[in-house]
Amino acid sequence: MAMIEAKPFPFHFDFDHVALVCIDMQKDFILPGGFAESLGNHIENVAPCIPVIQKLQEGFRKCGLPVIHTKECHKPDLSDLPVAKRNRGNPKIKIGDHGPMGRILIDGEDGSDFIHELAPEDGELVISKPGKDTFYRTVFHEYLNTRKITNLIITGVTTEVCVQTTMRCANDRGFDCILVEDGTDSYFPEFKKAALKMLTSQGGIVGWTCKSEPILEVLAAGV
Amino acid sequence: MAMIEAKPFPFHFDFDHVALVCIDMQKDFILPGGFAESLGNHIENVAPCIPVIQKLQEGFRKCGLPVIHTKECHKPDLSDLPVAKRNRGNPKIKIGDHGPMGRILIDGEDGSDFIHELAPEDGELVISKPGKDTFYRTVFHEYLNTRKITNLIITGVTTEVCVQTTMRCANDRGFDCILVEDGTDSYFPEFKKAALKMLTSQGGIVGWTCKSEPILEVLAAGV
Repeated sequence: MAMIEAKPFPFHFDFDHVALVCIDMQKDFILPGGFAESLGNHIENVAPCIPVIQKLQEGFRKCGLPVIHTKECHKPDLSDLPVAKRNRGNPKIKIGDHGPMGRILIDGEDGSDFIHELAPEDGELVISKPGKDTFYRTVFHEYLNTRKITNLIITGVTTEVCVQTTMRCANDRGFDCILVEDGTDSYFPEFKKAALKMLTSQGGIVGWTCKSEPILEVLAAGV
Repeated sequence: MAMIEAKPFPFHFDFDHVALVCIDMQKDFILPGGFAESLGNHIENVAPCIPVIQKLQEGFRKCGLPVIHTKECHKPDLSDLPVAKRNRGNPKIKIGDHGPMGRILIDGEDGSDFIHELAPEDGELVISKPGKDTFYRTVFHEYLNTRKITNLIITGVTTEVCVQTTMRCANDRGFDCILVEDGTDSYFPEFKKAALKMLTSQGGIVGWTCKSEPILEVLAAGV
């Protein structure tokens, strides 16, 4: 059993029951010229987590542990896109429209794909999800249950949207989750800070947070 | 079609497709001597929303519109209580133990029941939910779909836990949700403030917020 120094208290996990979850590290959310930047988001604020997630992915792979990748996107026929999501605020560019990197947030298009530094390797689970919650209309829960995964190490963007929503829904389902503080970012640094505090308040009501370093040390030691 | 001044822009809804959702206004979370207070939470911070929700419930009832009540609680045999939830932080008093108002967070016990000001009326949907997300292991989604409810007016406690989790999961499912700013509270005022900002950022990425007043005016006018 590995032990990590964390907030609000140490986090324990077993190598047989843990997975790394990398949320929405997609070109359209992160790269210059992508959809997020075109909406006026400060993409420079989501860059710091990239090398951290890269190191965590390497560490998990060296130990033969599962790495799970999610991407928020929709089917080309838009059949899984709620009307409310497409029309909210009557934006100039809507999901499904042609954008700078192909059709916006459509599965299979270049912009919805992962940044090259964090590309999935063969055999790793890739979840295309229509919502912010990774459990909604995906195989995530079934995958975790059939592999007896009970502990999730969570990374990705953005902290207060897809990351915290997924962590909250995982917590409802009985998973012990730890969010990697330097492995997650938001376009809004104050939202990242507030989300980290909310998740660990009231005795870890949603779960834990920690730095990547103690996790990398445990992986390197191969406990 | 009714229109409400809201953040980040006006919210429209139709009387035929709207419901009021009142989240977790339970004795154990709100009253002196309850479970929440015994954990050191400042229950005085969740009192202000009570009379506001009361007025909204009255307004909805006068118009013959649905009022939905949720309570976070578990079955007496604890079969729907994740081990991770019960043991998190190894607390002195665990869910299911005997507390000041009966067994803690067990359905049917006094403490898990609603405060008397906000008691459900006959015929109103009461959802006992094991998680923070009202959709998880409940009839909520089916109820809303079969009644063609598309717009949710959300109230309750606490803003950053069950309220925002439910709103995020409703948004994933295509519901247009507005959170009533003075109809929700948290033990931590800074978390309430941050949650309200997060939900409406990026063009209402999760939904809208507004004061109760414009909603009450629309209900009084009976549009």
